[in-house]
Amino acid sequence: MSDKKIPYKIYLTEDELPRQWYNVRADMKNKPAPLLNPATLQPMTYEDLRPVFCDELIKQELDDNTAYIDIPTEIRDFYKMYRPSPLVRAYCLEAQLGTPAKIYYKFEGNNTSGSHKLNSAIAQAYYAKNQGLKGVTTETGAGQWGTALSMACAYLGLDCQVYMVKVSYEQKPFRREVMRTYGASVTPSPSDKTAVGRKILDAHPGTTGSLGCAISEAVEAATSQEGYRYVLGSVLNQVLLHQTIIGLETKAALDKYDVKPDIIIGCAGGGSNLGGLISPFMGEKLRGEKDYRFIAVEPASCPSFTRGKFAYDFCDTGMVCPLAKMYTLGSSFIPSANHAGGLRYHGMSSILSQLYHDGLMEARAVEQTSVFQAAEQFARIEGILPAPESSHAIRVAIDEALKCKETGEEKTIVFGLTGTGYFDMVAYEKFHDGRMSDYIPTDEDLQAGFEGIPKFQGNEF
Amino acid sequence: MSDKKIPYKIYLTEDELPRQWYNVRADMKNKPAPLLNPATLQPMTYEDLRPVFCDELIKQELDDNTAYIDIPTEIRDFYKMYRPSPLVRAYCLEAQLGTPAKIYYKFEGNNTSGSHKLNSAIAQAYYAKNQGLKGVTTETGAGQWGTALSMACAYLGLDCQVYMVKVSYEQKPFRREVMRTYGASVTPSPSDKTAVGRKILDAHPGTTGSLGCAISEAVEAATSQEGYRYVLGSVLNQVLLHQTIIGLETKAALDKYDVKPDIIIGCAGGGSNLGGLISPFMGEKLRGEKDYRFIAVEPASCPSFTRGKFAYDFCDTGMVCPLAKMYTLGSSFIPSANHAGGLRYHGMSSILSQLYHDGLMEARAVEQTSVFQAAEQFARIEGILPAPESSHAIRVAIDEALKCKETGEEKTIVFGLTGTGYFDMVAYEKFHDGRMSDYIPTDEDLQAGFEGIPKFQGNEF
Repeated sequence: MSDKKIPYKIYLTEDELPRQWYNVRADMKNKPAPLLNPATLQPMTYEDLRPVFCDELIKQELDDNTAYIDIPTEIRDFYKMYRPSPLVRAYCLEAQLGTPAKIYYKFEGNNTSGSHKLNSAIAQAYYAKNQGLKGVTTETGAGQWGTALSMACAYLGLDCQVYMVKVSYEQKPFRREVMRTYGASVTPSPSDKTAVGRKILDAHPGTTGSLGCAISEAVEAATSQEGYRYVLGSVLNQVLLHQTIIGLETKAALDKYDVKPDIIIGCAGGGSNLGGLISPFMGEKLRGEKDYRFIAVEPASCPSFTRGKFAYDFCDTGMVCPLAKMYTLGSSFIPSANHAGGLRYHGMSSILSQLYHDGLMEARAVEQTSVFQAAEQFARIEGILPAPESSHAIRVAIDEALKCKETGEEKTIVFGLTGTGYFDMVAYEKFHDGRMSDYIPTDEDLQAGFEGIPKFQGNEF
Repeated sequence: MSDKKIPYKIYLTEDELPRQWYNVRADMKNKPAPLLNPATLQPMTYEDLRPVFCDELIKQELDDNTAYIDIPTEIRDFYKMYRPSPLVRAYCLEAQLGTPAKIYYKFEGNNTSGSHKLNSAIAQAYYAKNQGLKGVTTETGAGQWGTALSMACAYLGLDCQVYMVKVSYEQKPFRREVMRTYGASVTPSPSDKTAVGRKILDAHPGTTGSLGCAISEAVEAATSQEGYRYVLGSVLNQVLLHQTIIGLETKAALDKYDVKPDIIIGCAGGGSNLGGLISPFMGEKLRGEKDYRFIAVEPASCPSFTRGKFAYDFCDTGMVCPLAKMYTLGSSFIPSANHAGGLRYHGMSSILSQLYHDGLMEARAVEQTSVFQAAEQFARIEGILPAPESSHAIRVAIDEALKCKETGEEKTIVFGLTGTGYFDMVAYEKFHDGRMSDYIPTDEDLQAGFEGIPKFQGNEF
């Protein structure tokens, strides 16, 4: 179909909003390895997980066979408040770059949480409410997940307790106020509210925290309060499942115009956005129907895919969570505080890790100055102020489009624009003032992290 | 048509994006009074205005006869990056209120400037660029206009100099960074950069500024630099004209579903959003085709409509601008710094002032605590964090919906949700902490402002 007919923004109608999530594990020949009980090294069962997670979510976590899972009507109705989200043709960026490439981005920032996180937050809050729980606990890094969960909980009348990575808590004071607007309580992590938090503070006084620490605290808070469960904004299979709404809408929008992408790009911290975006396309690739290139983009300061090990590791710094097989930098790895761009998690989704290990996906690490350059360029020409996380994907999308300019190839590039940067102005200010620098961990830094990966038979790396 | 068929969000297609702005003055029997030259008290001519404004914009300013004015293709293409904006059916709010009323809001916050201001910013920047100018100067209050203009100028490659009301500059440090991201220079006003700024600082040391001050400084900056003109984000006829894109889209979306609103509500500072939203509906009322109630909502701390005088007054504190006939509190009136909610302008659009004077529109003043209560209620149930300005309209929409609950009337209420509150978290924090109070100027406070309204024959009030 001719370019001329493709609008700036492709909107699906509410009727076209997907009715089912897609579970890519059903089409994977090599299934992601199961979570292990760290005490027994046996796969975690439904019963093992019940003290921590909501029942229905455990079923979703463990189900690697059912390809399509119905989205409950209540969740779909909530989705209608901000979805379907637009798939935008980046005509202005293309023109500025002078590239023959066609660039599209799926924009998930048009809701108050400012990111795609709301897609899973409402699902998890819904299942918690349905189970008759009082509330949920969670961690948040850059703050999008905590905001999203606060919104979902406010809507459903659930209590919401958020442990926020200290560096973000300090850099983003207004994030806390947004969560308060939605009635959540927010604690900077590590804190002295939990045993594990106190232990981490003792061992690393002055630490600026990490997602791994905050997860440990939130899990402890959930299991020590009656009527509470823990919910997580990324990494888990269930989260990737909910986020497939992104990819399903993207595919439906492209199909409407007979557009087949060549390259699909997403930023990767824990992997929820990337996994959600690529799943339906990956399904086609796994079934041998179509071929695509997938590129995961991670910060050079926290390079799980490109420099991590594929092994069983703890999901949290406090080592209270199950072991997951994934690309990891070690659960004690904490990226430099100098790194402003989010995506600070030491591990990676097991699903994506397996796909990457099987050669079905590429990964690229980018430095933060070049990420903010891309962010500013994009903001000026496309009119959206991107979150630093999302800007990792912008960086590589621009790089790929410039390669097309050199070769003359008319590739179609799709990337995930996960959110907006309204609460990241401290980082933008650093960038404007030339106070931003790049940090790349040395091999020694990484080696120290790897030392913490548990050693047992079958976990060689 | 049955309610069931109305989606949560009504999106027009890009083809349905209006091709012309609507000039409500063409249908007004009593035209708004012309701008006067303060020296001669004669109507300002095209030539009089040329040192200050762009040529094409002056034509639009002075034209009260042409009903429809073509939107240039370049502006329409820019609009396509973020328009048509959604008209949202507030199903969740309705259910929570238990009202039989049907509530819709036109949401203008889904662009990086965070508000409707971009609709006029791109138009004004386009005409400046087309005239071969180097750059533009402007004032900004809450910061949305400055951000919007910065975005538009970055897109077109124009220099952008912003004078920002000091209280906002201090309360919203990140706004400055957004403008810097878009390459603008931002000066807190009053400043010592201009003669008029220095004069105001001398007379009112420690003033937190006002839109009126900032306008004076921006006008001086424009007229004292070669290749620059001044642009304004509200009040002017040209701005209301550009903002009719809001009302035209709203009307087209409602017409699609055969919905006729009973009440249309908008917040009013200088009047650009309200004027833009109601113009096409007001046109029908003026032509005797249909009837509507229109409600302008203003802060009780800056009550131009409800307690001001209808008279010729200066548009700026420095008295360098032409005189406009409008509802005004006097150009020296500066609302209490305690007032956090924007809408701090002492005057009001001449078009809206005439319509109000002729009894075609109502006005209501609301206090800021009740505005933030409405804002928080709305955020929690509709999932959008509203700007304090927009929340004035939310307050009255909720009040009207609750009246319907009492009477059982199934009225259709439409209000303008002009923007998001991401940069207003200092105000939200005050509200959460119980540090927000209400301020209502005394009659003596107002009398002091009225003293500054110029006295001449025909300007009795």
